[in-house]
Amino acid sequence: MIVTADRLDRARVLMAERGVDALLLSVGADLPYLTGYRAMPLERLTMLVLPREGGATLVIPELEAPRVERGPFDVLAWAETADPVALVARLAGPARRVALGDTTWSVFLLGLQERMPAARFEPASPLMRELRMRKDAAEIRLLRAAAEATDRVVARLASMRFSGRSERDLAGEIAAMTVEEGHDEAAFTIVAGGPNAASPHHEPTGRVLERGDTVVVDFGGTVGGYGSDTTRTFSVGPPAPDVAAAFATLEAAQRAAVEAVRPGVAAEEVDRTARGIIAGAGYGEYFVHRTGHGIGLETHEHPYIVEGNTEPLEPGMVFSVEPGIYVPGRFGMRIEDIVAVTSDGVDPLNRSPHGLSVVT
Amino acid sequence: MIVTADRLDRARVLMAERGVDALLLSVGADLPYLTGYRAMPLERLTMLVLPREGGATLVIPELEAPRVERGPFDVLAWAETADPVALVARLAGPARRVALGDTTWSVFLLGLQERMPAARFEPASPLMRELRMRKDAAEIRLLRAAAEATDRVVARLASMRFSGRSERDLAGEIAAMTVEEGHDEAAFTIVAGGPNAASPHHEPTGRVLERGDTVVVDFGGTVGGYGSDTTRTFSVGPPAPDVAAAFATLEAAQRAAVEAVRPGVAAEEVDRTARGIIAGAGYGEYFVHRTGHGIGLETHEHPYIVEGNTEPLEPGMVFSVEPGIYVPGRFGMRIEDIVAVTSDGVDPLNRSPHGLSVVT
Repeated sequence: MIVTADRLDRARVLMAERGVDALLLSVGADLPYLTGYRAMPLERLTMLVLPREGGATLVIPELEAPRVERGPFDVLAWAETADPVALVARLAGPARRVALGDTTWSVFLLGLQERMPAARFEPASPLMRELRMRKDAAEIRLLRAAAEATDRVVARLASMRFSGRSERDLAGEIAAMTVEEGHDEAAFTIVAGGPNAASPHHEPTGRVLERGDTVVVDFGGTVGGYGSDTTRTFSVGPPAPDVAAAFATLEAAQRAAVEAVRPGVAAEEVDRTARGIIAGAGYGEYFVHRTGHGIGLETHEHPYIVEGNTEPLEPGMVFSVEPGIYVPGRFGMRIEDIVAVTSDGVDPLNRSPHGLSVVT
Repeated sequence: MIVTADRLDRARVLMAERGVDALLLSVGADLPYLTGYRAMPLERLTMLVLPREGGATLVIPELEAPRVERGPFDVLAWAETADPVALVARLAGPARRVALGDTTWSVFLLGLQERMPAARFEPASPLMRELRMRKDAAEIRLLRAAAEATDRVVARLASMRFSGRSERDLAGEIAAMTVEEGHDEAAFTIVAGGPNAASPHHEPTGRVLERGDTVVVDFGGTVGGYGSDTTRTFSVGPPAPDVAAAFATLEAAQRAAVEAVRPGVAAEEVDRTARGIIAGAGYGEYFVHRTGHGIGLETHEHPYIVEGNTEPLEPGMVFSVEPGIYVPGRFGMRIEDIVAVTSDGVDPLNRSPHGLSVVT
């Protein structure tokens, strides 16, 4: 995992600017961003304590300690019968404003609130997003490598047989291809056929794909900790006229949304671009999710491409552009690319064709 | 997933007994235990709101709603630009004592605390553990099926070649076998050889296994949502004398700990039994973790088999018994079985041989 030595320093500068006294990070992506160490989501607390001034300490269960690589922080391993919340409270000391990693388990926050009654806790995301949202060149290299690996999987899918196979079976093969094509691991695989495709986060079932199905394939993995996330839509045999018509709208919407990406444009403008085209063609009620999400060490992170996010896009931001149309009981479709904002426009990291791919 | 219709009622009875006004559950195993629905760990809030009196409501992102099966609760789908925390606060209404699922993201707890200033939040685990800790016959059937599937994998491992293969490569094959032998999915696979085995939660690396290595293999998957978790230790070629001596101690400690399991015995007594034998042989400092953890919808859940847990074991409790000895830089070893407490003793769900298995 890439961890530039200055990340802890950049965090401290931001803490000083914002008057945050201590930053506490546990499970999730903030911790590996700053330390290179990803904590397992366990009932045993792992927590980085970063005071605005003074050294950082990683509080960690003793049995996990051998997994930590050296870094610019102390490691404090606690034994099985110790009280790690008390340890953290002691290290955070007199901190008044404490920023806590968003995905930290609530049970630990409740414990910290009890032991630090004078502290005011707030989510760490407003601070951490500033650090993580603009990717540097090394991060973009990993995101590009991951995106290109998904493009190679998509290319192989176009010549594969879909009919007669279950969603689950096909999803298993796609997950294997995700690794074969260069990911360290497959993170998720959605295969949703026929009426199932109307559920955006459908979990693959034993339902067998058949002629006439529209099939949404949405998958991704990680390369060096950084994610990919791509969706293409397939038609088993020629599409019905209503499916083809909806898809033409979707493709136009997705293309226009990608073209709308450039520095200075508000994130919500990208959403409005896609939504305007889809709603204008009469499918507005069938586009039930935002247009995209940032991607990096997490599959979903800032910036979110959603109405209400007026944040201007900036070079280095990397996110998905993925409008969809979902007609309950009938069909679903989505096109998703990861794109990077450049100094003057957009660099789509995914380059595989967008069209409704007709398969057997 | 098994969800007996009375689980919500049993939760309400317990809430009344303990004076809890509302139960709020999000990501993690408590939610599927009560509803059959497992929420994805997303920045979009999913939360069951169960008031002590009155109907239950599952607040869920609109795009996830198609994945929910009907149950004895209302489903309230929120659109992408809505404020789900405000929705939950409204549904929880005038609740004063609110029990919140332990693994709920802190960012949502902070939001709820802001919107419900009169409420006092506490972890839901003291309540949920009462419901989940004693498994019923259907749950034990699934746990047994999962354990037996791991035993079949262990049987195959005994005749496989270890030397010349990387930890990562072997782990990949074990994960595949975990599914082949009857799990719905592989949940985790540790293969730790030579000095790496001294790290209890070692992540498999490219290190190639070689003659003289002691290899810890710890793996599990799920069957119908319920987990398995088994560890066996292998020796590539004959073990060195110090390894063989330590293993003899470990095997005796694990056997004695399993035999100590029966209703009425304090959980910590099982830990003391294993630890006493290991410490008595001079390896005390090398046994750095508790002796076990409950298992069910989570791989780690109550009861924990650890010093300080004076809770008496009861029929239906299912947990691991897994002492280990870890000598930094030299070797590591662990034996782990899942066992169920019966009305008068113990029923080990894993039955594969415990010995240090010599492989090529």
